[in-house]
Amino acid sequence: MKKIALTVLLTASATAAISGPVEEQIRFRQSAYSFLGWNTGKIKKQVVDNPESFNKDYVAAAANAIAAVANSGLGELYGPGTDQGIGWKQTRLKPEFFQKKDEVTAAANKFNEAANGLAKVAAAGDKVAIKEAFGKVTESCKGCHDLVRIKE
Amino acid sequence: MKKIALTVLLTASATAAISGPVEEQIRFRQSAYSFLGWNTGKIKKQVVDNPESFNKDYVAAAANAIAAVANSGLGELYGPGTDQGIGWKQTRLKPEFFQKKDEVTAAANKFNEAANGLAKVAAAGDKVAIKEAFGKVTESCKGCHDLVRIKE
Repeated sequence: MKKIALTVLLTASATAAISGPVEEQIRFRQSAYSFLGWNTGKIKKQVVDNPESFNKDYVAAAANAIAAVANSGLGELYGPGTDQGIGWKQTRLKPEFFQKKDEVTAAANKFNEAANGLAKVAAAGDKVAIKEAFGKVTESCKGCHDLVRIKE
Repeated sequence: MKKIALTVLLTASATAAISGPVEEQIRFRQSAYSFLGWNTGKIKKQVVDNPESFNKDYVAAAANAIAAVANSGLGELYGPGTDQGIGWKQTRLKPEFFQKKDEVTAAANKFNEAANGLAKVAAAGDKVAIKEAFGKVTESCKGCHDLVRIKE
């Protein structure tokens, strides 16, 4: 599963964008990250903020959603020129993205591994393990943000 | 897996919204459906429009993404008042949504089952079976749209 996901991601990066016009690519990635954010928020609520509200199935579904985003081949939404343009809103992608391919790929792979790791432990349902795996996911999010996202 | 997903979905519907302000609920669901649309588009391209371009891993990842959206408990993004408001854009939810709970639940379950069915056959990689399962997903999308989405 992890192997497949990485292959998809790297293939997509290597062949550049195949997902339509710039604005569409930006809108789709903003949608993917927003859907991702909703699901990380759900896990944060039940694992970090209010651990007494923990519901195994609910957290596992959210973790699966996070992994599915990570495995969806987001690389194809980062075609040339997508550091400028409006999807749902103006993109915050730094132009350096296109000069930092190796660092971006490393950061993306880290996210991918962390997300699949979280889905695995979430299915098992150990709250302590989930919290730790979730920490790795949020850390990997930050890694990419610091690297290629313009601060608001 | 399917049982878990349905439970999450129905529980979320029964307890109504738990995902923040109206605008946030609308934005999250627009993001979820847009991410979903990107992934259905990928399968349409490789299974319906250009079957010679079929890549098993790519289609399986897209099918997993669709299933993850279906299993993510979207019901909690349909709280009271969310037939009016702006997420990324004005919502297209018909006010009748709130008077048609049983029909909506039936339509949502149909989508859920179709999406999980697609993920299952996509993992096996039989193109004919995938096309058939994909048809059930798009049919279930249309079922909900006809029921509760305002036409553009």
